[in-house]
Amino acid sequence: MPTSQEIIPLSRACLPCFWGVDVGGTNIKIGLVDDVGQTLAFEEIETHEPDGPQQAVDRIALTCRQLAERCGVAAEQIKRLGLGTPGTMDIPRGLFVEPPNLPHWFHFPIRDRVSQACGLPVSFINDANAASFGEFWVGKGAKVDSLILLTLGTGVGGGIIVDGHLINGVNSFGSECGHVIVDSHPDARLCVWGGGRGQLEAYASASAVAQRAQEGLRAGAVSSLTRLAMAGKAVTAKRIYEAAEGGDQYALSLIDEAAYYLGIGITTLVHTIDPGLVVLGGAMNFGGTQSPVGRRFLDKIRQTFAERTFPNVLAGTTIDFATLGGDAGYIGAAGFARKQFMLETSRTT
Amino acid sequence: MPTSQEIIPLSRACLPCFWGVDVGGTNIKIGLVDDVGQTLAFEEIETHEPDGPQQAVDRIALTCRQLAERCGVAAEQIKRLGLGTPGTMDIPRGLFVEPPNLPHWFHFPIRDRVSQACGLPVSFINDANAASFGEFWVGKGAKVDSLILLTLGTGVGGGIIVDGHLINGVNSFGSECGHVIVDSHPDARLCVWGGGRGQLEAYASASAVAQRAQEGLRAGAVSSLTRLAMAGKAVTAKRIYEAAEGGDQYALSLIDEAAYYLGIGITTLVHTIDPGLVVLGGAMNFGGTQSPVGRRFLDKIRQTFAERTFPNVLAGTTIDFATLGGDAGYIGAAGFARKQFMLETSRTT
Repeated sequence: MPTSQEIIPLSRACLPCFWGVDVGGTNIKIGLVDDVGQTLAFEEIETHEPDGPQQAVDRIALTCRQLAERCGVAAEQIKRLGLGTPGTMDIPRGLFVEPPNLPHWFHFPIRDRVSQACGLPVSFINDANAASFGEFWVGKGAKVDSLILLTLGTGVGGGIIVDGHLINGVNSFGSECGHVIVDSHPDARLCVWGGGRGQLEAYASASAVAQRAQEGLRAGAVSSLTRLAMAGKAVTAKRIYEAAEGGDQYALSLIDEAAYYLGIGITTLVHTIDPGLVVLGGAMNFGGTQSPVGRRFLDKIRQTFAERTFPNVLAGTTIDFATLGGDAGYIGAAGFARKQFMLETSRTT
Repeated sequence: MPTSQEIIPLSRACLPCFWGVDVGGTNIKIGLVDDVGQTLAFEEIETHEPDGPQQAVDRIALTCRQLAERCGVAAEQIKRLGLGTPGTMDIPRGLFVEPPNLPHWFHFPIRDRVSQACGLPVSFINDANAASFGEFWVGKGAKVDSLILLTLGTGVGGGIIVDGHLINGVNSFGSECGHVIVDSHPDARLCVWGGGRGQLEAYASASAVAQRAQEGLRAGAVSSLTRLAMAGKAVTAKRIYEAAEGGDQYALSLIDEAAYYLGIGITTLVHTIDPGLVVLGGAMNFGGTQSPVGRRFLDKIRQTFAERTFPNVLAGTTIDFATLGGDAGYIGAAGFARKQFMLETSRTT
């Protein structure tokens, strides 16, 4: 079941519809989405990454056939498939390059293989860019023309839409908001999985927050997390959040620090794009607006932005949590496929 | 006379044509540009900023009439006027906000007044964004779909084009590349004219380079510039360049430092936009490729980018000097007017 979208019956659907497929290192989300962004059918299957990409392609196609049959949509009403995957990727050629989350899938021609297996044209897109398109189409950004989405998870992903146009980049590296530099010092931190120094992902991803906690605890920080660490348990972002909810000052300081660097990165992104709306998605939201910790996290981000930007830009910019949760990716992939379908149709008629 | 463009005769022109007007704090450049970016007539007039904006509007209109008459273009062949001005501005409403370079022009409705005086529809645009459109249309970016332009002068301006689309921003603050953050420390430098801390303009503009030189000399830096400073002469970016040409190690270190921060800012911009091409315009180019100092400046920028980005992005990105010099602004304003004219024409036919 989708995490936040309800499944609607065919009788309420607005046809035609589009597949949205969101490939992750652990799971693959597959949804059939109608012309206004409603989900008609959904299934999450396991990736089985080490078994290679072709078996996953075959199971994606099988799941699509089963879902279409289950909800009763005729094949001719399904126009295109949107495929979001983690980078690195070569969008024009439809290939993976070397995505760290999919080490056995390097250089695989995923776009054309999915197209062959499903019998549909495929729109190939970065997973975070897909999520931004989902929030833009039917989520937090449904009433605006431009937005920036940051996805805060194991890494920091991003998607940027300017006047309805998604920035994919010339080298399939557009909208990589986790790789803006927030620390220019020559000895700045490295991302957990390498890459350039001082980039946002090395300060504001779940892995970065966990890593900083471990460093601090080893250096003698006073915290309820020390007990966890001594018991041999992993100090994860989730456990840091739980400690912060219990009032642990060290855990709160770690979250404040991540928020500070997010505020810096967001200032840079806003001064580049000036989208009017910045949306925070992904699993690392520290409880979101439901939790005092999540509200503090958001406040600290906004405060840092306020300190670094200009009054008119501050007044014209909203920073808030996303609304589609884990569904943004497949919905956005379907929406992007829909947009390409409409462009092609308008060209040929 | 334009600084790099030749004036072509009407017989070689490709009609229709468009006015490009580039308003600066000291001078206003006015060019009549044909459908393929060639200049048919050009004049530079003084801004007389303290006399207020209306007198400048009247002289812009007068100059346009004289230039059109001089080159023999019929009025009906001139379709639109592109107007580039320094920010801050409110593009949708056609107003200045409070541009620091035009202190007597605050809140003036420049777009509509120019339109009335010249009898043409006006496309209103930020000056650096206009310059980026010039480089995109007929300059360094004439063969690509996306680019980032940085204009290095008293401040650092910028213009970003993604798949042919100029980023103007929701708050008329898009493409403000001088305001990306390159130093996140709470005590980072402020821009010469205030604003948020740690922004590129505070490290890589001509005023910032001059200010750092003065600070260093006061702190006892050994340099041929000391003599200048003691003689009561201003230590400007131009004089720093001259000292560097003479082998002054301190002057070279100042230029290296500006290049380092530009490399950081460019990495951030490329990871956001991934345009494939980054172009350096503006007066502060330290002699450009004609000078060993300019080449060293460019090399240091490229080196910093190489250290902070990823191999495939590095391989797919060119960083180079712009080609249109001081003409980029008026040519780009005319080109942007042409684009809006074509959009409107396609809508109504």
